[in-house]
Amino acid sequence: MATKQEVIAFIASDFPQVKSIIEEVGDRSATIRRKIGVEDLRPGGTVSGPVLMATADFALYVALLGEVGIIPLAVTTNLNINFLRKPMPDRDIICVCKLIKVGRSLVVGEVSIYSEGNQDAVAHAVGTYSIPPARNGKK
Amino acid sequence: MATKQEVIAFIASDFPQVKSIIEEVGDRSATIRRKIGVEDLRPGGTVSGPVLMATADFALYVALLGEVGIIPLAVTTNLNINFLRKPMPDRDIICVCKLIKVGRSLVVGEVSIYSEGNQDAVAHAVGTYSIPPARNGKK
Amino acid sequence: MATKQEVIAFIASDFPQVKSIIEEVGDRSATIRRKIGVEDLRPGGTVSGPVLMATADFALYVALLGEVGIIPLAVTTNLNINFLRKPMPDRDIICVCKLIKVGRSLVVGEVSIYSEGNQDAVAHAVGTYSIPPARNGKK
Amino acid sequence: MATKQEVIAFIASDFPQVKSIIEEVGDRSATIRRKIGVEDLRPGGTVSGPVLMATADFALYVALLGEVGIIPLAVTTNLNINFLRKPMPDRDIICVCKLIKVGRSLVVGEVSIYSEGNQDAVAHAVGTYSIPPARNGKK
Repeated sequence: MATKQEVIAFIASDFPQVKSIIEEVGDRSATIRRKIGVEDLRPGGTVSGPVLMATADFALYVALLGEVGIIPLAVTTNLNINFLRKPMPDRDIICVCKLIKVGRSLVVGEVSIYSEGNQDAVAHAVGTYSIPPARNGKK
Repeated sequence: MATKQEVIAFIASDFPQVKSIIEEVGDRSATIRRKIGVEDLRPGGTVSGPVLMATADFALYVALLGEVGIIPLAVTTNLNINFLRKPMPDRDIICVCKLIKVGRSLVVGEVSIYSEGNQDAVAHAVGTYSIPPARNGKK
Repeated sequence: MATKQEVIAFIASDFPQVKSIIEEVGDRSATIRRKIGVEDLRPGGTVSGPVLMATADFALYVALLGEVGIIPLAVTTNLNINFLRKPMPDRDIICVCKLIKVGRSLVVGEVSIYSEGNQDAVAHAVGTYSIPPARNGKK
Repeated sequence: MATKQEVIAFIASDFPQVKSIIEEVGDRSATIRRKIGVEDLRPGGTVSGPVLMATADFALYVALLGEVGIIPLAVTTNLNINFLRKPMPDRDIICVCKLIKVGRSLVVGEVSIYSEGNQDAVAHAVGTYSIPPARNGKK
């Protein structure tokens, strides 16, 4: 397991390009905030799908780090996303991830994706991360 | 919308081969019980994956009928399922479906699939149904 | 690797309830035929979705066995299926599976699902199997 | 239907931020090239998953435009992606999309995603676009 502070420090050092803010980590879950800029919008005034996908994937990774500990080499193996409603262009995106399986080699979680302030999810994702086998007996 | 009794009556008349029991319908959700017989088991003493998939798909259909009304021709367009844990061979399968989008042409729901008595889901599915356009102005 | 004869013999002994016929195995692929009976049909004269899902899942398992060898305990971890067209009620279902990844612990394949005699797929699935770690150094 | 030139012109005017190059469009398929810069890489020297997701989604959109015509408001409803191998950091990403269903309201396609020069796909996606109903009888 890793604390919120440990996860934030790891992301800041190893993924400095990440635009998301870790709001909560722990108890097999994570909440992520992604600020939306003009470069994230699509014609029609909506948030682009890839921004939602990237943020959902990141929320899964953060929930995994919080539960399993700092494992830099965990990789996504599958992500399935359903787009449900048009996100609002002037609201942050909030992702709430809950892990539904934490196995030795596979971790599965689901992510509800919101425009802040609206209770109906704009998208919903389910993803799987693969944890590489420990080398030399340690992880 | 359709009541639990209306949904049960429709399923009994149009899908007499269904082995699942409708326990709850309404409020954009449904709970389904599937009794497990020896013909549903796989070597190793577990419930076969297709039984879980079929029951999850049925739970989605029931939740949709409860919310949108009796629409015989709604069809599944996508189903994504993650298998999380080995189901128990001597317990009923319980599916809890919650709809996350109810649009005019597409309905999306997620389904948590349990072996009765165990809080950890054995599988999790997300699926989409397509509702055919109303003909002659009525549905 | 396992030959077509070895795979057929294994399925006949360990999965006697399977209704599908193995037509081809090898070269990271498999072709499966599933005869359709009245018990497989849905009102409206179409093949039920769970029959398609079950046959696609089986095609993946057969392709895996052919490529990796007889591994009884390989299990599906994810299956995603899109239903594209109404299958014909009086034709066999043909599944053609091609493996797109054969890793040490995960095998991924895609499956095109046809009503025999029609070139347009009635459904398309992508699935992942997990191979349990070898015990005692052998598989 | 729209020609390659029409699709390129539409993307240039309506999606100027897109970093992908349309190499081929037509015959229910599309081939897309995405140049990879340092901002697209992840620690460990690999292309980030969201770049692959975004390019696959774009390949689907381009194949749809080529087949159905210029429909700005088509939107992704579902995307499922499997990550198969580590992409090479110094190669372009090539996406090859083939549509497997072109319906009046839903279009489904699959996308094989490569690091240029390598025959084994680094990822594979299947996605669905929804086409809005025509207004005033025209599309």
